[in-house]
Amino acid sequence: MASNSFGEAFRFTTWGESHGPAIGCVVDGVPPRLPISEPDIQFFLDRRKPGQSRFTTQRQEPDRVKILSGVFEGQTTGTPIGLVIENTDQRSKDYGDIMSRFRPGHADYTYEAKYGIRDYRGGGRSSARETAMRVAAGAVARKVLAARLGNAFHIRGALVQVGPHKVNRDNWDWDEVERNPFWSPDKDAAETWTGFLDDVRKSGSSAGAVVEIVAEGVPAGLGEPVYGKLDSDLAAAMMTINAVKGVEIGDGFAAAEIPGHEAADEMRMEGDRPVFLSNHAGGVLGGISSGQPVVVRFAVKPTSSILTPRRSVDKDGNEVDVVTKGRHDPCVGIRAVPVGEAMMACVLADHLMRHAAQCGS
Amino acid sequence: MASNSFGEAFRFTTWGESHGPAIGCVVDGVPPRLPISEPDIQFFLDRRKPGQSRFTTQRQEPDRVKILSGVFEGQTTGTPIGLVIENTDQRSKDYGDIMSRFRPGHADYTYEAKYGIRDYRGGGRSSARETAMRVAAGAVARKVLAARLGNAFHIRGALVQVGPHKVNRDNWDWDEVERNPFWSPDKDAAETWTGFLDDVRKSGSSAGAVVEIVAEGVPAGLGEPVYGKLDSDLAAAMMTINAVKGVEIGDGFAAAEIPGHEAADEMRMEGDRPVFLSNHAGGVLGGISSGQPVVVRFAVKPTSSILTPRRSVDKDGNEVDVVTKGRHDPCVGIRAVPVGEAMMACVLADHLMRHAAQCGS
Amino acid sequence: MASNSFGEAFRFTTWGESHGPAIGCVVDGVPPRLPISEPDIQFFLDRRKPGQSRFTTQRQEPDRVKILSGVFEGQTTGTPIGLVIENTDQRSKDYGDIMSRFRPGHADYTYEAKYGIRDYRGGGRSSARETAMRVAAGAVARKVLAARLGNAFHIRGALVQVGPHKVNRDNWDWDEVERNPFWSPDKDAAETWTGFLDDVRKSGSSAGAVVEIVAEGVPAGLGEPVYGKLDSDLAAAMMTINAVKGVEIGDGFAAAEIPGHEAADEMRMEGDRPVFLSNHAGGVLGGISSGQPVVVRFAVKPTSSILTPRRSVDKDGNEVDVVTKGRHDPCVGIRAVPVGEAMMACVLADHLMRHAAQCGS
Amino acid sequence: MASNSFGEAFRFTTWGESHGPAIGCVVDGVPPRLPISEPDIQFFLDRRKPGQSRFTTQRQEPDRVKILSGVFEGQTTGTPIGLVIENTDQRSKDYGDIMSRFRPGHADYTYEAKYGIRDYRGGGRSSARETAMRVAAGAVARKVLAARLGNAFHIRGALVQVGPHKVNRDNWDWDEVERNPFWSPDKDAAETWTGFLDDVRKSGSSAGAVVEIVAEGVPAGLGEPVYGKLDSDLAAAMMTINAVKGVEIGDGFAAAEIPGHEAADEMRMEGDRPVFLSNHAGGVLGGISSGQPVVVRFAVKPTSSILTPRRSVDKDGNEVDVVTKGRHDPCVGIRAVPVGEAMMACVLADHLMRHAAQCGS
Repeated sequence: MASNSFGEAFRFTTWGESHGPAIGCVVDGVPPRLPISEPDIQFFLDRRKPGQSRFTTQRQEPDRVKILSGVFEGQTTGTPIGLVIENTDQRSKDYGDIMSRFRPGHADYTYEAKYGIRDYRGGGRSSARETAMRVAAGAVARKVLAARLGNAFHIRGALVQVGPHKVNRDNWDWDEVERNPFWSPDKDAAETWTGFLDDVRKSGSSAGAVVEIVAEGVPAGLGEPVYGKLDSDLAAAMMTINAVKGVEIGDGFAAAEIPGHEAADEMRMEGDRPVFLSNHAGGVLGGISSGQPVVVRFAVKPTSSILTPRRSVDKDGNEVDVVTKGRHDPCVGIRAVPVGEAMMACVLADHLMRHAAQCGS
Repeated sequence: MASNSFGEAFRFTTWGESHGPAIGCVVDGVPPRLPISEPDIQFFLDRRKPGQSRFTTQRQEPDRVKILSGVFEGQTTGTPIGLVIENTDQRSKDYGDIMSRFRPGHADYTYEAKYGIRDYRGGGRSSARETAMRVAAGAVARKVLAARLGNAFHIRGALVQVGPHKVNRDNWDWDEVERNPFWSPDKDAAETWTGFLDDVRKSGSSAGAVVEIVAEGVPAGLGEPVYGKLDSDLAAAMMTINAVKGVEIGDGFAAAEIPGHEAADEMRMEGDRPVFLSNHAGGVLGGISSGQPVVVRFAVKPTSSILTPRRSVDKDGNEVDVVTKGRHDPCVGIRAVPVGEAMMACVLADHLMRHAAQCGS
Repeated sequence: MASNSFGEAFRFTTWGESHGPAIGCVVDGVPPRLPISEPDIQFFLDRRKPGQSRFTTQRQEPDRVKILSGVFEGQTTGTPIGLVIENTDQRSKDYGDIMSRFRPGHADYTYEAKYGIRDYRGGGRSSARETAMRVAAGAVARKVLAARLGNAFHIRGALVQVGPHKVNRDNWDWDEVERNPFWSPDKDAAETWTGFLDDVRKSGSSAGAVVEIVAEGVPAGLGEPVYGKLDSDLAAAMMTINAVKGVEIGDGFAAAEIPGHEAADEMRMEGDRPVFLSNHAGGVLGGISSGQPVVVRFAVKPTSSILTPRRSVDKDGNEVDVVTKGRHDPCVGIRAVPVGEAMMACVLADHLMRHAAQCGS
Repeated sequence: MASNSFGEAFRFTTWGESHGPAIGCVVDGVPPRLPISEPDIQFFLDRRKPGQSRFTTQRQEPDRVKILSGVFEGQTTGTPIGLVIENTDQRSKDYGDIMSRFRPGHADYTYEAKYGIRDYRGGGRSSARETAMRVAAGAVARKVLAARLGNAFHIRGALVQVGPHKVNRDNWDWDEVERNPFWSPDKDAAETWTGFLDDVRKSGSSAGAVVEIVAEGVPAGLGEPVYGKLDSDLAAAMMTINAVKGVEIGDGFAAAEIPGHEAADEMRMEGDRPVFLSNHAGGVLGGISSGQPVVVRFAVKPTSSILTPRRSVDKDGNEVDVVTKGRHDPCVGIRAVPVGEAMMACVLADHLMRHAAQCGS
């Protein structure tokens, strides 16, 4: 149960609605004596912040995180870390007309079907606003990973596809990711996407995307077969992100197409340690990390919050047309990059701690 | 923690190694007074059984399940159901030469890295043999679903791709699934696969596959946002199956390519109830079932147990070549169909019960 | 793991230190469409509030609870309820001299041993201040119980012993509980305790107590054998309350002294339903509620925060004497009464929901 | 949920009914490379075995445990350990007459109320037979404790009260515990109990008891505040044992009677490490172990399976008299000693591993 919590040893619980007074989370199980401050967390929140380009929602929120517990004199104490962000720019009136109408492709109908009530303002609990707290939890997780794995470890994310346009992997440049508004590792793709998304926005529609997250410096041995496999937990983690419809590890669906003698990553010795000659597996074998980079991709569907009228029904059983007028991203996948990074951090921190429990650190 | 358990309200725990004396599982939380017998479970085990065609392993096991607890006079009692299958055809000597060698693409290396010890016989705990117990648990889950949802509910699975060869969805015929050794819904595809897999087998290699599982008659309202979403739990469930590298819900990765005005499933009224005009979402919106068919697909990589020699290393750091001589499926994806069905059943039973806890039944 | 959460289906997670900026909790799994407001919760917090008589700490805190999520237009929505109370009267300077000294009988030493760091201000996380959030969660649990069980259900608590002085059960009067500052059901005992505690306070010491919580109107059938037994969860719940050293169900330790033919509660029919002729079992048989009142008692040790100097050591290994000068209750057991009631409510709400999951409601 | 599992990091799940074909358990999360064999577990099962004196049930069962998984070449592999004991001496006919009658003081009525069905043979799932699997799980837990804590660590249990007769603590001799059929640390008490229980048995009644379990060599720092406190988990553990009605840590209920300046355990330095001058707290402060012996006591009510006729009702609403003819212990508390030891071992192993996850080992 406990459906608003994620993780076992490193566990966070989020609360809050898009247009309530605040959103927050509790991070439980954090190891003691890790240095952490509000700016450390704010840094990652700012990367996810909306309103940074014309391709993300113009909703302006400072999103100032406050640490309310679990940190004393700049260090974690081992007790739960309470984090909160006040909601300051809510403009609830924008949403009045969807009070009783179900936006197609949204969770409006299913929340109503499940609970018989919903906070319709801005999507309430189903809003991607909740992901801000994942980014905050992820910032805490990175402290755990940094303390236990050191500088060789890092997580990076990139957008690898927008609508039908994929990056050219031959152009991959991690430095480029920080230089364009799409987290694109391919400068040319970023230019293509600019034109494409301008057209999408003008046409009153939206576009999907694919995000790739890579963790390097992950030690071999993380993951708990058979129902706490590292890849299973990563799949669950990414699939909880709003609008995600597919998850891949390593080659993913392409693995179904290649023959077995190609698919298996061969091994050789490099000095006194084994190395893999390829990484089709995406760093996970039998649910346990192999020491190679852990590679996850996920597909984000185009948002249904669009200006084009769509057919729907309302709570009273009337057939209606729905247009979503609020401020929305033409491609919500862009802002999913820091969220995916955060979820990767949380899953790895959790498994690092679970591994220590069973096998020692 | 508890890495060998799956589910919350309907929860099963499996144990056992490929070549140990037995494998088993405990199904906990089963509602009382459901009629169940060993043949009810055996029926589904027989569908998964190896050795049924030349495309699955020739290992011959009767796989006779025994119910050791939780059932009294033909009915569940609400207490945990203990199930066990004895391992009778183990031929451990087949595996002697991989005692210290890491088979590329297998979990041999990662188990060793994690635990410092492994039961190498037949892959030990990492063997797909463990999935027999999932099928058994799934048979119990189906009893829960039948009791609470009635006959309108059913789960069906099909193989939709082998290697690069996909089914033609215009030919889809659920009846055909039971008539060919591949669970193919497309007769023509089954023929193509026959020739393809014969070639694969002769070449000493193996092929991947994609499996699709569809649940119809699922009521709207199942799934617990935001970290117990129905699609997230399904993704986790499928990703725990051996060799799975990708999971999709509804349109999956294709959803990233279509525009927003196409992606959202529109709604109209049909008499006094809302209906959807398409099912891009695969029956899940905001992590909650919409009442439409729940559609999941997963990609299975080609098995690494092949006759073609591959480069690897051994425990002592020597570079070696590995050939896997045992009896292995050229396409392990085929036998993943009943396993995927079982996991779908377990996830749905779990969420049906969780929904009853919070929202009443 | 998740050590700061309690419950499965009805689950709350608390965070916050005694002298941090705020304390809070998240209540997850709450059924939708229950009417609830801040005053509903405040009512129970006010019962626990310190400073109400000379027998409880003079720390003055308004303890104003705010609902930050999960409630919309006066009703629960099924999403997590975020609750927060700001800490407004902290006087940290009172605690400066125990920064490095371990107060005997307190958690100072063990927190230091476990975490290597502690927020020493007011006991930090180990302070009974955390119990305010249990009372808040308990107020939410009562809404669940009221909605599902109706008016026949209620929980009441009483103090039945202070130091060596027990109530006379022949004088038991539930109405009296609300009329004296001790929650005593026996007017005479309250008078005895007044004199006794005045002496204790003057002598610079403190006194222990025993609390009894009774839930009436609990239906038969709640509790999950064998490791989620109702009495086991109640014992765990009460033992998590600060300073509790013992828990009893029904006759408790006295059950060890009576013969078997007396101990078993006999049954007869009353009209068409079975009734018990006694309640030695305290309403629980085999871990499942019997329909009789559920009776729990717990022992609270005398607080170690006393003016009498006690021998101890400090972080640097020096032998020191410790006197606790802050504002402290001479008998912390008094304020444990509303906390025990709240924990009873949370356990019962949880089991009511768990029962609905497995057996239907 | 998962009511038949106990523990988080070290987690066991039991299954089986008193008169089903077998009982068993799965121990999950066990660290790898611990030496373990069937005789290691059998040793503890034999200590609990019935039929060893005239004071325990004459049911004769060899109770041969089999290890079915998780152990390879004499060592744990980190995968789940499946254990099973066949039921060989069931004599179901003894119980025919209680098929529809509710034995007073038993779980017959509450299982029926909860599940609407019950396996009445020998009490089914509510039988103390389930505790055999706890003893087996406890034997595994001891291996974890031995590997991580070494020889200074040990757990010992004793019976400290039978009916109204307590041991004289001045006579306490741990060696005596192994020399009498009661696990009494006081030779004189054992003699008193012999006469007392003979009388009880002849009178067709039964007697309660109090068990004390002591763990020495527990390091400071185990336990997870605030809802996974070491004492809270111990209370839950002991309260799940059949017929237990009360649990105490350290002074327990007596702590309510002594003044605060006596209750707090003072500290001094002994060389370079802090020592406590008393152990009123029973080795736990603020829910965390202090490094002192962990002391738990629990009260076992007299069994209701007695020859004296008691008034009850049956399933059809008839008033009946019930006499329990089977083979039953006059004092079930005696056999609870090894069970309590086992639960102590499981709780400590779990917390040792949880501590390693958060704080490192």
